[in-house]
Amino acid sequence: MTFIPERMTPLKARRLGLDTQQELTIYLRADSAVCKSEGFAALSRVLVRTESQHIIATLNIITSELLRPGEIGLSESAWQRLGVKDGDSIWASHPTPVASISNIRAKVYGHSLTQDQYSEIIEDIVAGRYADVHLAAFITACGNDNMNDQEITYLTEAMVNSGSKISWDLPLVLDKHCVGGLPGNRTTPIVVSILAASGLTVPKTSSRAITSPAGTADTMEALTNVSLSLDEMKKVVCEHGGCLAWGGSVRLSPADDLLIKVERVLDIDSEGQLIASVLSKKIAAGATHVLIDMPVGPTAKVRSQAAADKLAASFREVAKSLGLTIDIIFSDGRQPVGYGIGPALEARDIMAVLQNNANAPADLRERSITVAGAMLEMATDLPKGEGINQAKQLIDSGQAWEKFRHICEAQGGMREPPIAPYRFELIAHQHGWLSSVDNRRLSQVAKLAGAPADLAAGVEIHVKLGEEVHPNTPLITIHAESAGELNYAVEYLEAYPETVQICADKEQLNERVTD
Amino acid sequence: MTFIPERMTPLKARRLGLDTQQELTIYLRADSAVCKSEGFAALSRVLVRTESQHIIATLNIITSELLRPGEIGLSESAWQRLGVKDGDSIWASHPTPVASISNIRAKVYGHSLTQDQYSEIIEDIVAGRYADVHLAAFITACGNDNMNDQEITYLTEAMVNSGSKISWDLPLVLDKHCVGGLPGNRTTPIVVSILAASGLTVPKTSSRAITSPAGTADTMEALTNVSLSLDEMKKVVCEHGGCLAWGGSVRLSPADDLLIKVERVLDIDSEGQLIASVLSKKIAAGATHVLIDMPVGPTAKVRSQAAADKLAASFREVAKSLGLTIDIIFSDGRQPVGYGIGPALEARDIMAVLQNNANAPADLRERSITVAGAMLEMATDLPKGEGINQAKQLIDSGQAWEKFRHICEAQGGMREPPIAPYRFELIAHQHGWLSSVDNRRLSQVAKLAGAPADLAAGVEIHVKLGEEVHPNTPLITIHAESAGELNYAVEYLEAYPETVQICADKEQLNERVTD
Repeated sequence: MTFIPERMTPLKARRLGLDTQQELTIYLRADSAVCKSEGFAALSRVLVRTESQHIIATLNIITSELLRPGEIGLSESAWQRLGVKDGDSIWASHPTPVASISNIRAKVYGHSLTQDQYSEIIEDIVAGRYADVHLAAFITACGNDNMNDQEITYLTEAMVNSGSKISWDLPLVLDKHCVGGLPGNRTTPIVVSILAASGLTVPKTSSRAITSPAGTADTMEALTNVSLSLDEMKKVVCEHGGCLAWGGSVRLSPADDLLIKVERVLDIDSEGQLIASVLSKKIAAGATHVLIDMPVGPTAKVRSQAAADKLAASFREVAKSLGLTIDIIFSDGRQPVGYGIGPALEARDIMAVLQNNANAPADLRERSITVAGAMLEMATDLPKGEGINQAKQLIDSGQAWEKFRHICEAQGGMREPPIAPYRFELIAHQHGWLSSVDNRRLSQVAKLAGAPADLAAGVEIHVKLGEEVHPNTPLITIHAESAGELNYAVEYLEAYPETVQICADKEQLNERVTD
Repeated sequence: MTFIPERMTPLKARRLGLDTQQELTIYLRADSAVCKSEGFAALSRVLVRTESQHIIATLNIITSELLRPGEIGLSESAWQRLGVKDGDSIWASHPTPVASISNIRAKVYGHSLTQDQYSEIIEDIVAGRYADVHLAAFITACGNDNMNDQEITYLTEAMVNSGSKISWDLPLVLDKHCVGGLPGNRTTPIVVSILAASGLTVPKTSSRAITSPAGTADTMEALTNVSLSLDEMKKVVCEHGGCLAWGGSVRLSPADDLLIKVERVLDIDSEGQLIASVLSKKIAAGATHVLIDMPVGPTAKVRSQAAADKLAASFREVAKSLGLTIDIIFSDGRQPVGYGIGPALEARDIMAVLQNNANAPADLRERSITVAGAMLEMATDLPKGEGINQAKQLIDSGQAWEKFRHICEAQGGMREPPIAPYRFELIAHQHGWLSSVDNRRLSQVAKLAGAPADLAAGVEIHVKLGEEVHPNTPLITIHAESAGELNYAVEYLEAYPETVQICADKEQLNERVTD
């Protein structure tokens, strides 16, 4: 259907300053001529045009005097995308249906989708043609393991093609990813420092937290600047072999960012979308060799070895189709890693490991060495097992710490992680051994305490699984930047006392901890 | 997690007059203390409390001066549900996750849900605890035929229990439903008139159009008042045996209304949700005997006889579990019924049939008689085939027309359907026979012309399938209340010339029309 603005009276653009995130939203008065003539009602999808641009937006009807007659209000996202200024002429009319929605319908009906169908969906998503409910339908239709490996490959390629790609002009560019769910598992800054110190190229871009109390970018922000332009990033990598930047300032796999925002609200996982999300970011970032760290445990994201094997097989198959060298390691996902959960607390753990402090968390050191070792072996012709030795040596010698400092300085200067003013200690009332830790609940406590927005907020863990607990000693400390947030976190912890469990009998403990 | 408002500074309620439909939405300034202290971002789900009420709402962040510092803006839906007035104290905090979302996750993972799980979902939906993206996920997860009959029964019961129920204190209360997709198939007013004239009880509540150019309530509105309270409805039924009212003024199966609004935007069908939607409304309206009219055709909602048989089997099974007597008839769904599509045009067809006019649409008369006949046989001990004869007799004798007039008078007076001032005729340029009609596109034309909001708007059909077409005679006429709407409809029709097809060769025609 051709749109002919000459026939219609234009509306005047009005910036309402409403942040509706990715959902392009417009606002019209209930008594406006266009609502009546077009039969628009709340939630109608509307084609919105200026002289040069057009979008499809969701309509909210205004029954108050927020808009003057003849005005059309725009959400921030709609405002940006149309590139208008106050008072510009805008026309609103019926859109033709978004054709790729029928692909989602086909997916709901159990069909496998083609390469073109995934491309069409992703193109429409990035062009802003989907309402949030359409994104939700797409995520749900691809939920569980409803996509085969071929489809995941198509989706990944479509997501890569939807944004920018970084070219490093190097035969070997390393990257890593940890499949989430394990609080405090902040090996990345240590691994990057080890690999860069060994002379390899690791241009690491990381995300901020989506549902967790800290992403690597959040943690690094407690130590240095992470908002680098592509040119700044290339300069740091060129000089030091690696960087630890936030990926958001480069437009890599933008479809992923849009999908993830809805996934977060939905809280519905999809194996296919997970793989496509991870690999599309890596490919777009220019990686040639990728290591996937997959923690497995009853309260980690991947809950059993069987699930891990299945997910790993799909990862391998899709990576192979996309010409990516991949290695996957499984790790213990039964409890948080290190002592801290939350940006600043995790930053302190990282520094302690890199500085070879006596009180550094042994598990974080060990995991970082394992990951770095596997990556050294993947990238060079080191014999099996030698990677770990070399990684160890690079930490013990202080070379990794030196490299880390140089990277931080190059990114804009190193800073001391902040300390939270409000704290609460969970005290053990009985003697025993720590028998279980619920990662999800502990993450929730850290988030309620303010992490990651408040860099200093989070949870500090004093006892690890299997360790002896003495009465009247602290098990964990909650850190917060405000009293209100501390209260939330404490209330939540008190509502779920099983978050941290102590077993009085050491024999029973062994059964529980090793299962 | 307990919420303790005393610890927090309240916000002042502000009615923004924003209609976001069922999605409860709140608006906070980006610089508000509560956004910072709670770490709220756009799209966050927020627990919103007054002294006596609470809701979970979706957050939109305001970056302009729409709100003063310390204010919280509320959408109309949130405003109504909280029952506040301007300046009332409101507290915003983190909600505990909505537990029933995990049921949807289970459905995505392919599990069958229990009675309790469906009850929890529907309860949370009606309580407004779902964001639109959650509704979309629920609809999608139940899409296609992902629900078994037992689950559909559970969902139906949960939907019935979510709202009011009408009790008629009668052993036999008739109702009917047409599974949509066939424009102009407006048999209901005729069927109700026949059945009520025969002495049966048919308290018909109908919906307005959701995705079609007219619902029965829209069509009846072109002839009389349809907004009756429950008491008014009971009075009309008591006096005349039937009514033809809009169901929306009685709160029957409110979950259905919420789901349908998102289904409309999504455009994703679910067999289970369709059955639950239909049967929950009927049961809540107090029906004991229900007839389902299921048009079958390539562009109808049910596209093949195999699909129809499958859907009918589920309908029968679920109705049986719920103690409802049901009969299902399949009808020809290859082309629109009657001559008119759109409220007033369909109203004219109905009157023509009831008045036994010579130019009355034969197909609408025949279908109405078939449906009424089946219902007469279901409700009485008439021998097979006798129902149709009795139905015919009640129309031919004028008794049905008299009953219809009495019902309209009782509902508030009968009126003449309006006539549209703007028209466009699609002219045949060749000789031939009408070989195919695309119901969906023709509906779209009627909607673009303004139906159902503009009662007079729609499409008038001059030739039926298989009929001879002469050059320079009109095939269809588009009716609109404004020039702009007429233009849209015409442009759409011109963009899809296959909407109405003529076949020059009569032999080929027979193959096409009968397939």
